[in-house]
Amino acid sequence: MKKSFRYYLQKLTPVQIIVLYYSLAVTVSVVLLSLPIAHQDGTAWSFIDALFTAVSAVSVTGLTVVNTADTFSVPGIFILMFVLQFGGIGIMTLGTFIWLVMGKKIGLKERRLIMTDQNQTNLSGIVNLMRQILLLILTIEAIGGIVLGTYFLNYFPNWQDAYLHGFFTAVSATTNGGFDITGASMVPFAEDYFIQFIVILLIALGAIGFPVLIELKDFAASKKGKYRFSLFTKITTITFVLLVVAGTVIIAALEYRYFFSGKSWHEALFYSLFQSTSTRSGGLATMDVSLFTETTLLVMCALMFIGASPSSVGGGIRTTTFALNLLFLYHYARGNKNIKIFNRELHEEDLMKSFVITLMAILLVFVSVIILSISESFSFIEILFEVCSAFGTTGLSMGITPDLSTVGKIVLMILMFIGRVGILTFIYIIGTKEAKANYHYPKERVIIG
Amino acid sequence: MKKSFRYYLQKLTPVQIIVLYYSLAVTVSVVLLSLPIAHQDGTAWSFIDALFTAVSAVSVTGLTVVNTADTFSVPGIFILMFVLQFGGIGIMTLGTFIWLVMGKKIGLKERRLIMTDQNQTNLSGIVNLMRQILLLILTIEAIGGIVLGTYFLNYFPNWQDAYLHGFFTAVSATTNGGFDITGASMVPFAEDYFIQFIVILLIALGAIGFPVLIELKDFAASKKGKYRFSLFTKITTITFVLLVVAGTVIIAALEYRYFFSGKSWHEALFYSLFQSTSTRSGGLATMDVSLFTETTLLVMCALMFIGASPSSVGGGIRTTTFALNLLFLYHYARGNKNIKIFNRELHEEDLMKSFVITLMAILLVFVSVIILSISESFSFIEILFEVCSAFGTTGLSMGITPDLSTVGKIVLMILMFIGRVGILTFIYIIGTKEAKANYHYPKERVIIG
Ligand SMILES: [K+]
Ligand SMILES: [K+]
Repeated sequence: MKKSFRYYLQKLTPVQIIVLYYSLAVTVSVVLLSLPIAHQDGTAWSFIDALFTAVSAVSVTGLTVVNTADTFSVPGIFILMFVLQFGGIGIMTLGTFIWLVMGKKIGLKERRLIMTDQNQTNLSGIVNLMRQILLLILTIEAIGGIVLGTYFLNYFPNWQDAYLHGFFTAVSATTNGGFDITGASMVPFAEDYFIQFIVILLIALGAIGFPVLIELKDFAASKKGKYRFSLFTKITTITFVLLVVAGTVIIAALEYRYFFSGKSWHEALFYSLFQSTSTRSGGLATMDVSLFTETTLLVMCALMFIGASPSSVGGGIRTTTFALNLLFLYHYARGNKNIKIFNRELHEEDLMKSFVITLMAILLVFVSVIILSISESFSFIEILFEVCSAFGTTGLSMGITPDLSTVGKIVLMILMFIGRVGILTFIYIIGTKEAKANYHYPKERVIIG
Repeated sequence: MKKSFRYYLQKLTPVQIIVLYYSLAVTVSVVLLSLPIAHQDGTAWSFIDALFTAVSAVSVTGLTVVNTADTFSVPGIFILMFVLQFGGIGIMTLGTFIWLVMGKKIGLKERRLIMTDQNQTNLSGIVNLMRQILLLILTIEAIGGIVLGTYFLNYFPNWQDAYLHGFFTAVSATTNGGFDITGASMVPFAEDYFIQFIVILLIALGAIGFPVLIELKDFAASKKGKYRFSLFTKITTITFVLLVVAGTVIIAALEYRYFFSGKSWHEALFYSLFQSTSTRSGGLATMDVSLFTETTLLVMCALMFIGASPSSVGGGIRTTTFALNLLFLYHYARGNKNIKIFNRELHEEDLMKSFVITLMAILLVFVSVIILSISESFSFIEILFEVCSAFGTTGLSMGITPDLSTVGKIVLMILMFIGRVGILTFIYIIGTKEAKANYHYPKERVIIG
């Protein structure tokens, strides 16, 4: 029986394994989250709501059709934390478990190579890395939970509540889950900069990408000046930081005369910084984002669309995709054929990939907006914001999620799935490999643009 | 003196020549359109309005800040027709004139090669082609003007008015100018299918691309079965037709229960067909497009963004760019490295180009929408529609053009310019060629998406 299970597993491609386990995780989550013990008395709970909540949790998005704080019991909250772990670190770790089940030992020849390959669905040699990741993330969450929980003793009447909130917030932030049990995201802590600082740090650690964390760990352990960060880590980290900074500055500038009018500079700074970081994929908010101007919301849509780093807990087209697009446009305009950066050259295939991902994502967002504009009666910006939030697995919302039609919920679930597994994986799913043709036709140029 | 003029001209790159002559055409148009004789008595006419009208006419867009019918006198209308000719066929023909001025005779070795090269700003060998184009377009306009003018005898009290309207409509349709002297675009002829059929035909002839027209002419003159259309002509024509058909079907389906409710099937068909064709870049309308639902308007935005064929009187990213994007996405998903179509293979560089154009255009539209969302107080869809219309040099509008702020007008003028000369030319303008480096760095892969 076990042999037969292994047999079928071995016939699956890594992409099929990911999809299978995503579906499995969602199914298990639906069941767990629908257990009577998980709910407070007398809460309404339909199948579509259960499914939506499960998909949102497994994809660590955080869009909610029901108020988490009003719906779930304490056991329910623990189940939710478990599902977030499962989703946040899951998609990749699940692949590792598969490998373990199949009994394959993987030699770790060169970690950097594996890091680059892991999202190209080559799972070989990933076991050791996954163990490190799991340990690292759990450590981060534990420290975050203890710090926040202890600090929350100032906020809550008893230590149980304080540490429940502390650990849930730490898990929700680190996995970029975006769920909250306050009933109003981080709004109750809008004036507590310490909490916000910790949460921003946790969100960033989850969204900056596991390879970056591993390299940082190696860097800390290495002799001074001897360690070289990979090109990937340099590009993704710089892009990540630049996006957070640019987002903060733009939000501050755009809302200067609007939401921030009458507020102090540090309030404006923290509102901007927190919401900007959150668009990377965190999804928590210290304010009702629908109070922002339409311009700010449009910028946030773009930021959510870009999303987090590859091999992180986040979604979207990813930071490297965005960076490579911009680098290519810049170098193309300057007439450079080869893109040199940090004493390295980028690979043409990676550039092509980043274009494919971006265009596919834009197409996806456009079609989704069209469908929702038919099925829903919300304004364009509300719909676009929701769609970008789902694709970026961000979880920010202008508040329309609970009122979506079933069609709308289904579209968002698909977007959260694609956002989480990544456009490339999605393309491999929908792409049917056709027999490679060996013949060639003469090439002919066409007029472009 | 003449020698010195030639000397400076010879030092210019083709891109600089195009920009120079575009600017020159706009300047001359501002002066001509501002002549007192061009106006009806007592009409207001500011410099920014004159500039906007000139840019709109030279780029054959048709967005208007003043009502053409109420502002211009009969001589003014003739000037406008002249400017439309200048703009529609102009950008390329002007390049030819430059070549003539410089006294260079160009041998026409292989016409097809020239066609492909002409929008890559290699102007050599283009003279003969330009003569053919000019003759072809003028013939089309003359026939269109006579047919429409004669038919308009039913509509207008005297033959002067009938033929003025006939020729203006023919010129405005063929050059895809999008201007009207009825005061309400083609709305007065919303129930006259003959006029609409002729106008649709003229718009299509202008927007389908000059190389296609030339090849069609050669095809008609060749022996049966002996002529092979170029890959370019096949791709652009099929894409053009598919876009018109898809647009018609989608508009009809989306408005079935809304704008078309209570209307007959042939009314729905012609409204859909006319507006769909118009998004290719024509810009004339048989109805107030703001009466469409938001979904339809979004689809029209996408259609205008795609625009017309390359080397035509239209704008946008162009049909071939769109087609190559889709072809590449499709083949990438199927794991094909080489894109085969019509027994030919597409060139990697053309695929790269189409990606660059599309992303640059999306960036441009996004930034423009952001700016207008700050400077204007219109709804998001009104702004997006206006921006896409300007970039596609389409000229359709939900009616906000006359009420735009100066900032808004400037942004739209820049978009019309870029849309008309094309994103590639624009990239060459902003791109500073840096010294080619001969050294190479080691290549390093990065994780994408
Ligand atoms: K999230
Ligand atoms: K037009």
